[in-house]
Amino acid sequence: RGIPLLIIVSGVEASGKSAVVNRLHEWLDPRGLSTHAFWDETDDERERPGAWRFWRALPARGTTGVMFGSWYTKPIIDAAIGSRDLDALTDEMHRIARTERMLTDDGLVIVKLWFHVSKSVQAKVLTRRERQEKKARSGKKRRRKEKKSRLSSLAKRFSRHYDAFAEVSERALRLTDLGNAPWRLIEASDRRHRDLTTGRILLECMQQAVAKHEAGPEPAPIEEPCDDPAGSPTVLDTVDLEQRLERDEYAARLKAAQARIHELAWQLHNQREHAVVAVFEGWDAAGKGGAIRRVTSALDARLYRVIPIAAPSDEERAHHYLWRFWRHVPRNGYLRLYDRSWYGRVLVERVEGFAPEADWARAYAEINTFEEELTRHGVIVLKFWLHISADEQLRRFQQREVTPWKQHKLTDEDWRNREKRAAYESAVHEMVARTSTLHAPWTLVAGNDKRVARVQIAETFCERLMRAKRSG
Amino acid sequence: RGIPLLIIVSGVEASGKSAVVNRLHEWLDPRGLSTHAFWDETDDERERPGAWRFWRALPARGTTGVMFGSWYTKPIIDAAIGSRDLDALTDEMHRIARTERMLTDDGLVIVKLWFHVSKSVQAKVLTRRERQEKKARSGKKRRRKEKKSRLSSLAKRFSRHYDAFAEVSERALRLTDLGNAPWRLIEASDRRHRDLTTGRILLECMQQAVAKHEAGPEPAPIEEPCDDPAGSPTVLDTVDLEQRLERDEYAARLKAAQARIHELAWQLHNQREHAVVAVFEGWDAAGKGGAIRRVTSALDARLYRVIPIAAPSDEERAHHYLWRFWRHVPRNGYLRLYDRSWYGRVLVERVEGFAPEADWARAYAEINTFEEELTRHGVIVLKFWLHISADEQLRRFQQREVTPWKQHKLTDEDWRNREKRAAYESAVHEMVARTSTLHAPWTLVAGNDKRVARVQIAETFCERLMRAKRSG
Repeated sequence: RGIPLLIIVSGVEASGKSAVVNRLHEWLDPRGLSTHAFWDETDDERERPGAWRFWRALPARGTTGVMFGSWYTKPIIDAAIGSRDLDALTDEMHRIARTERMLTDDGLVIVKLWFHVSKSVQAKVLTRRERQEKKARSGKKRRRKEKKSRLSSLAKRFSRHYDAFAEVSERALRLTDLGNAPWRLIEASDRRHRDLTTGRILLECMQQAVAKHEAGPEPAPIEEPCDDPAGSPTVLDTVDLEQRLERDEYAARLKAAQARIHELAWQLHNQREHAVVAVFEGWDAAGKGGAIRRVTSALDARLYRVIPIAAPSDEERAHHYLWRFWRHVPRNGYLRLYDRSWYGRVLVERVEGFAPEADWARAYAEINTFEEELTRHGVIVLKFWLHISADEQLRRFQQREVTPWKQHKLTDEDWRNREKRAAYESAVHEMVARTSTLHAPWTLVAGNDKRVARVQIAETFCERLMRAKRSG
Repeated sequence: RGIPLLIIVSGVEASGKSAVVNRLHEWLDPRGLSTHAFWDETDDERERPGAWRFWRALPARGTTGVMFGSWYTKPIIDAAIGSRDLDALTDEMHRIARTERMLTDDGLVIVKLWFHVSKSVQAKVLTRRERQEKKARSGKKRRRKEKKSRLSSLAKRFSRHYDAFAEVSERALRLTDLGNAPWRLIEASDRRHRDLTTGRILLECMQQAVAKHEAGPEPAPIEEPCDDPAGSPTVLDTVDLEQRLERDEYAARLKAAQARIHELAWQLHNQREHAVVAVFEGWDAAGKGGAIRRVTSALDARLYRVIPIAAPSDEERAHHYLWRFWRHVPRNGYLRLYDRSWYGRVLVERVEGFAPEADWARAYAEINTFEEELTRHGVIVLKFWLHISADEQLRRFQQREVTPWKQHKLTDEDWRNREKRAAYESAVHEMVARTSTLHAPWTLVAGNDKRVARVQIAETFCERLMRAKRSG
């Protein structure tokens, strides 16, 4: 039925999580099942936002993923024995809840299993385990010392932290135990009871998912309605399209900005603390391509990549719509320029009706969450809307029609889009209003004069890179 | 026209390669263009066969890839200033030629550019570059010392190695200057001449590729014809299908082998010198699934993954057919089990006519090259053909028909495949004969008794892992 299933296996140390994962592999067909352990972080992962490795591991529609260790692991450990306080944990848990919400909204079934054993059982298991390992290493010799102390050193260490872990986990579970992805607590002292309960819970969740699928989609709750009837004033009206720039001033300012960008990009690369994600959206014929080129010509080809966003591949379609953008998130020290972006969801998909209202309506919050994950890691997120007036667009379309090497740029679709200008205008307005956040603001670019647009973009680039450099 | 283009940029140090790459980015539309620099190797890359990172970067059909630094870089440096001798270089160049051959056979257009400057020009450029950098660092102060020595230290270092590099490069180019992917030498002392020549060569190559595409496929040369008429004896006749195993002996031997596999897999993981790629092919209903399960139940779920091979995704179809298998090549310390594999090319695709004869006929050599890349890096390649007699297959099909929970396993296709048994038999024969190499031999498994098959597979696993461990 094409339902994706994610099983998160977590819980107390020595509760037999790894045995459960192996048991799952016995029960389930290995085709369509993949397990991700997240134990050894690669440098590719370390140098990207924390969520990247988890997004990459999400199961495609119709398949099952097991996460052994998950987005819960690090925050809980950090709060229990590390440096971070409970407020940080609370924030983190809210972020996780938002992410899980967007995944279940997209149809993912998340089964979250928490395996629990008491302090004394944990100590016993760890002591036994450590003795077995020692025995194996030392070749079956028995040591007198071991018999004396009732608990092994490993067991003692975990015992010391048991209560802190219990408190932190309790809070983490409570904050993320929501209807769309509830926690299932499993008492794991007895191996048979543990496995049987796991199996029963899984069966139940899978049956529910299938039944829900059969019943068809429930009417999704709509977020607050958009109260901008087409034609009313929008943020775009605030853009001064009358600005012009003389050739000399243009050349001088562009050159200066480009030189600065070149230098800042190398500094960014050498420091390895930030990456850049720059989004270019705008009207057809607004000059996105030319603007991107003015930025990239300042950059060393090794440092950046331009990601053109066209129709998704079938692998991409088998995941949440943000998955394809997560794929391309750059490592620290690199820049990615997106020619169109995830904002397609609330622009073309909304206006053309490709996505149902429930889907695009919740996309604003999803996009803010996504960009927040990026900026929290230090990614500099730049977003440009290239604005031109309807008249200027018409002029450029007509010019393209008569210029042989530009004809391929003009399609029937461009003319059709043009007729929907009012609908697009209110979509752009809502997009800018709802996704201009402190860390990832929109820049509205005055595009009637290409020189003005290019200088504005290049200078904004400089400024944002400078600011990030100063803030460290 | 869906033609993929790969531009390899290489040459002498200080010949302006990076300027050329930036120039290419100005000329070409950034959509559908991606540049890979291969300068900082990640641990994900280091722990896999060397070719992995290059395969990942190959352009999809209809797109252009620029490789700045390529499969030529490391072998040339190693031979010029490193530890490896010219024989190793020669081997490496032959391997590269084979890989390029398989890529161009698949339709990839490879443009290989070699930029050349003389020793004195190199020294001048490097000296100038180093002085500029020093100046930038020290904030425009001039040092007296610099003026005295005519060459910078960097320039001197490169000068020392110039002749060795020249000799090695000359040999590398000669060995890989072949009709399907010739080298283009560009004299790079003069910047304008360099860029102009590059542009002219690219234009020419692209025009040729389009013209060739328009002309339609040329009749491909067929490799030596298969001389096994259907029905003649095959390697499969050597498999003793009469073997049987009693329950007790089966249980004991399987248990022993599984315990050993468990231990060896952990050792493999801790040593990080080898990975395992195990291929399971065989007749329908030969028991592949059950056999895979007997191996995986011995393994910790964190260490292995089962890759089921079904229809390729559209991203996979846009590349050479081996690309999708390269994707899943494991890091050192991990195991991958393939349920069906790249051998589909010379089995189902051959028999059913999905691939033209020219394609499957050259696949034997391509597969051997692929597996050689794996084993050279230390990947243990296991290949199992699960053989059962036609009668046993019929018995199992009939059993599946009447067993409710097995019915889904039996499709009309299985019956159709059964009718083509003779054609499949000679395809299997040729496959085993042509791809059983020293490092990646086939194991023909006697499958009429499932116990015999499972024990044979588990014990072969043990043996190969042991052997790899001993050889270090």
